[in-house]
Amino acid sequence: MTSTNRAAVLFAQDDLRVVDDYPMPELAPTDVLVRIKAVGICGSDVHYWTHGRIGDFVVTSPMVIGHESAGVVAAVGEQVDGLAKGDRVALEPGVPCRRCSHCKRGTYNLCAEMKFFATPPVHGSLATFVRHPADFCFKLPDAVSLEEGAMCEPLSVGVHACRRGGVAAGSTLLILGAGPIGLVCLLVAKAFGVLRVFVTDVSDERLAMASKLGAAGVFNAAGVEAEEMAARVREANGGERVDVSIDCCGVESAMKTGIHATQSGGTVVMVGLHDPVMKLPMFNLGTREVDLKGIFRYRDTYPTCISLLESGLVDVKPLITHRFALDELLEAFTVAKEGRDGALKVMFNV
Amino acid sequence: MTSTNRAAVLFAQDDLRVVDDYPMPELAPTDVLVRIKAVGICGSDVHYWTHGRIGDFVVTSPMVIGHESAGVVAAVGEQVDGLAKGDRVALEPGVPCRRCSHCKRGTYNLCAEMKFFATPPVHGSLATFVRHPADFCFKLPDAVSLEEGAMCEPLSVGVHACRRGGVAAGSTLLILGAGPIGLVCLLVAKAFGVLRVFVTDVSDERLAMASKLGAAGVFNAAGVEAEEMAARVREANGGERVDVSIDCCGVESAMKTGIHATQSGGTVVMVGLHDPVMKLPMFNLGTREVDLKGIFRYRDTYPTCISLLESGLVDVKPLITHRFALDELLEAFTVAKEGRDGALKVMFNV
Amino acid sequence: MTSTNRAAVLFAQDDLRVVDDYPMPELAPTDVLVRIKAVGICGSDVHYWTHGRIGDFVVTSPMVIGHESAGVVAAVGEQVDGLAKGDRVALEPGVPCRRCSHCKRGTYNLCAEMKFFATPPVHGSLATFVRHPADFCFKLPDAVSLEEGAMCEPLSVGVHACRRGGVAAGSTLLILGAGPIGLVCLLVAKAFGVLRVFVTDVSDERLAMASKLGAAGVFNAAGVEAEEMAARVREANGGERVDVSIDCCGVESAMKTGIHATQSGGTVVMVGLHDPVMKLPMFNLGTREVDLKGIFRYRDTYPTCISLLESGLVDVKPLITHRFALDELLEAFTVAKEGRDGALKVMFNV
Amino acid sequence: MTSTNRAAVLFAQDDLRVVDDYPMPELAPTDVLVRIKAVGICGSDVHYWTHGRIGDFVVTSPMVIGHESAGVVAAVGEQVDGLAKGDRVALEPGVPCRRCSHCKRGTYNLCAEMKFFATPPVHGSLATFVRHPADFCFKLPDAVSLEEGAMCEPLSVGVHACRRGGVAAGSTLLILGAGPIGLVCLLVAKAFGVLRVFVTDVSDERLAMASKLGAAGVFNAAGVEAEEMAARVREANGGERVDVSIDCCGVESAMKTGIHATQSGGTVVMVGLHDPVMKLPMFNLGTREVDLKGIFRYRDTYPTCISLLESGLVDVKPLITHRFALDELLEAFTVAKEGRDGALKVMFNV
Repeated sequence: MTSTNRAAVLFAQDDLRVVDDYPMPELAPTDVLVRIKAVGICGSDVHYWTHGRIGDFVVTSPMVIGHESAGVVAAVGEQVDGLAKGDRVALEPGVPCRRCSHCKRGTYNLCAEMKFFATPPVHGSLATFVRHPADFCFKLPDAVSLEEGAMCEPLSVGVHACRRGGVAAGSTLLILGAGPIGLVCLLVAKAFGVLRVFVTDVSDERLAMASKLGAAGVFNAAGVEAEEMAARVREANGGERVDVSIDCCGVESAMKTGIHATQSGGTVVMVGLHDPVMKLPMFNLGTREVDLKGIFRYRDTYPTCISLLESGLVDVKPLITHRFALDELLEAFTVAKEGRDGALKVMFNV
Repeated sequence: MTSTNRAAVLFAQDDLRVVDDYPMPELAPTDVLVRIKAVGICGSDVHYWTHGRIGDFVVTSPMVIGHESAGVVAAVGEQVDGLAKGDRVALEPGVPCRRCSHCKRGTYNLCAEMKFFATPPVHGSLATFVRHPADFCFKLPDAVSLEEGAMCEPLSVGVHACRRGGVAAGSTLLILGAGPIGLVCLLVAKAFGVLRVFVTDVSDERLAMASKLGAAGVFNAAGVEAEEMAARVREANGGERVDVSIDCCGVESAMKTGIHATQSGGTVVMVGLHDPVMKLPMFNLGTREVDLKGIFRYRDTYPTCISLLESGLVDVKPLITHRFALDELLEAFTVAKEGRDGALKVMFNV
Repeated sequence: MTSTNRAAVLFAQDDLRVVDDYPMPELAPTDVLVRIKAVGICGSDVHYWTHGRIGDFVVTSPMVIGHESAGVVAAVGEQVDGLAKGDRVALEPGVPCRRCSHCKRGTYNLCAEMKFFATPPVHGSLATFVRHPADFCFKLPDAVSLEEGAMCEPLSVGVHACRRGGVAAGSTLLILGAGPIGLVCLLVAKAFGVLRVFVTDVSDERLAMASKLGAAGVFNAAGVEAEEMAARVREANGGERVDVSIDCCGVESAMKTGIHATQSGGTVVMVGLHDPVMKLPMFNLGTREVDLKGIFRYRDTYPTCISLLESGLVDVKPLITHRFALDELLEAFTVAKEGRDGALKVMFNV
Repeated sequence: MTSTNRAAVLFAQDDLRVVDDYPMPELAPTDVLVRIKAVGICGSDVHYWTHGRIGDFVVTSPMVIGHESAGVVAAVGEQVDGLAKGDRVALEPGVPCRRCSHCKRGTYNLCAEMKFFATPPVHGSLATFVRHPADFCFKLPDAVSLEEGAMCEPLSVGVHACRRGGVAAGSTLLILGAGPIGLVCLLVAKAFGVLRVFVTDVSDERLAMASKLGAAGVFNAAGVEAEEMAARVREANGGERVDVSIDCCGVESAMKTGIHATQSGGTVVMVGLHDPVMKLPMFNLGTREVDLKGIFRYRDTYPTCISLLESGLVDVKPLITHRFALDELLEAFTVAKEGRDGALKVMFNV
């Protein structure tokens, strides 16, 4: 084991650099030290780099970036008993307070004291060595690679979104937006037993990928009114509205489409975050008892993600389009930012 | 038993009259004939009278008005076995198709083929005699009066709203709007074991009634910004947001207040219907996983309402402010329309 | 279309015969007439034949046998609008009263007035022509054969059992009994996204089929104590008890195994019915909050089954081991009764 | 504040004594020190005293007894911010590991590493001073006394049992056993809005108390067969079985009565623990989809209990029949053991 640590540090907006002699973390008795091997770049990582902030979270001091990660256990704290040196693990990036009412009720993702990788002022995981509570490190079976382990993070969003929507075998589904999150929602829904998943986007290239991954029908929404788009989905679904819509755009027009496309008693899940305020057809939504549910990250998803990857029911490999070494930090972030060459998921092999 | 039938018929907008020789209904084998005794006036009745329509439902031919009703069984169809002549019953006004997927799944209130009293073209129940399927007539125990039986209809809205919000003992609650529906939500929540129910309205008179009926705190929202109002509720609730908000106004500002006032992981129930389109803080709602749920009427509520009335846990008598005979038809509707003399529920004794 | 009807009639215990001139059914306005094409034999059909009764249900007058069926619509009642002559349909065999509280709440399978094919005194569907309410006939897509349509009936048991157990992607599962119902539970669980399904039986032949259909581990329970068997399952599951156990045997030892093998907070679903009274470790079950849930047939499963078959997520064809014409009635029933030649599902092509 | 600590220590079976110079507890940063004021005696306390064990939990070294407690905060750890010296608090007695899957999913009562007052080897709370994590100490409003605070513990069992049974306004309920736990279930059910609660016991004295606390009907079960008792309950309930049965006896005959008395689709909750193995009518239970659910202690109940006490919806004062000083230790335990003078809850004022 090397005894030096390297980390990708965001010093300020547009100032992202590899630090070679980053301090080695110290372990609490319930922590493990992980030799990080794979880290994916998320849209939020790019946004912190290009804007220095997301909403109220502002980078005011240097912060290690990255939160989609997997690695190999390098050392364990004295109270850790479920993990051992050499175990391959995926790291769930958010650690809640464990004491508030949300933590006690199982909705720990809503904990106000959550410490989440690369959400200021908490450091992220794009480094050679990271310390993490053992119970948020999930052992990977042989059949699941470290890159797939890192993909548990975006996959978790899909699992949580599908759970919140009550997606199950026999459901019909509309996914609005075929970016990386829309695609993981598609993969998860298929793995949950769903036959008919329709997908909208404004990019034919993305829609082609959705078709390749199993969408029953794809629609280019460019220039199409929400009600008209909903009508087309309904027609494709045999004249019936869908049971669940999952919006991965976060824009008003997509949400409107979702509401009109969802059957009475169904659910619209809001995953994408873009327009802070939206003008929505509430009369229509309310009188048809279409529930509207947002998601904030995820909770209790890692074991399920690993199971889905191990079984082969979900194959995330087609989503990993680019790979870089840590030294290629800025090039990797640039590819991710520009979506260059059809980039979906850009992965570091640390 | 008299053998003639009188009915309050809405011939067209602004043309509401009592018809003295209205045809006696004919019974199907599973129907009962009810001698109607008590009928409350609902805002929707008034709206059909003054506008001739509600949304897409238009009065195009003469229609008997009224849907909050109770009476005495006068005759039973040959296949009816749970009811007998002389039984006192409350009438659940909507009869679903019993065959669609909503009907099979227990969400019959969403049935697209629903036949609901006084929703065009279905006749209502403000008449001497009404025919109704026996399984939508609920026997009243001795302790529940016929007027209380008629009140099961608005009370059902409160029960369905509280159920949809997951209101239970220990919940904290904000009700926006202290009209008749806001007040039944308050009564139901208290009966479900809720200690803290806060209520907003723009009328001090209505808020005084809410206080009298057990609200833990009341707020006049006139001229107060949504975020500020939410902050005041939070302060009154010991610094915590409430678990559930129930909006009985249907206006954008109330919904905004509800969203800001509701804790992460909580629920906003939309009961009131006024603004068809609303501009709402979706980013705030989504990232805190505040669920937004509308209600459409109610389902499977009558037995619960009767139980709540029989036990005395809900007392609807303070809500019945005015009583009229059928001959005073227009005066009664005028009082209800104007909310004259603090009118909450105007009741016909037929 | 032929104008004569042939039916397999159980006249009394051990007296099962084809009647050539069976009366043609008459249609109610909401019925369809189905030209039956495929009917599977269920264990209950065999039991009525060999015993003349199941519990309190006694064959006291001649009864058409059979309830797992699919066919082609031959005529439709005047009020039917979702189906037309020539449509291929699967028949859900039980028709509830549509009026009791169970029917209104969506638990129509518990309706006390249920009329179910081949449950005395209701006639079954092993006939050339059968009349059935249109809303219990489910149109089959081109990709689903009539034999597969008939298989929706046993498949429904698996769907309902998995739903009652809360089986979902990421669950771990133990199925006790690898007969036809155990195997459909296995197929359904896999389609719901479950990776690890363990199966016990006393027949190595049946266990081999379970392995072939995707079981993660199989155990011959012959002569093994319940606690020991539970311990072996736990060991195979990485030292953890399973989330859900589904007992398809209905015998005390299997239920005991299921209870001991299920993790705290998990669920044991009782599907098999054999021992009317069982001696069970209630202290263990109760203090670990292991829920025990039986199932009675199923509800709202046909659309899901058809979706699972259409998608290919469930393949029931390996379960159909034998095929017979209606004229081979007794031979078919004998094969089913004896489980001859590894018989799993014996199917009539009518 | 006194600086010495006194504690009621169970040295071994039948050897329970007050120790005058018991060590003062040391605080972790997230702990508070509580000056205990009120402690109730539970049946399990008595059982440890008289038997030295409960099941696998054996008193092998001296252990402070008691777990139903409330007091006044005497000091707070440095990281505590929601509580201050002088606050009156109720102590939830079980502290889970906060790290296992149960803790993360909100079912922390099933945590295998739970540390629970007076469950060997964990010390209890019948002492002058007790240290406890701040987040398991719940501040009492002025309207709730310290004795009522201590009663949150048994009340929690009632809340958890009613929640597990899905008890809600409109439910009908049978409680088997009118001891302290049966009575708190009764009180909680009434507060949840239930009108009809039937109660069985073999003691007329206990049944009289149940009637006084609001039971709709009471039945002496002495010498009555389970099916006959169920039939009597059904008759008292207007010919219908009840929605939920809660067994607070833990004996086979009571559970059998509960199963037969509960309607199809309903729930039997097993609270009492006595017979480790029971012979139960599983065919009846399974084919009517009557769910059987045990409870283990409770989770997330203290805020609800305090709310119910503050609102006056639950009045536990009639249950507190005897009060003792700590010096009267053995007399208090003897009264509790013998149920002397109609003892329900025996309370220490420390």
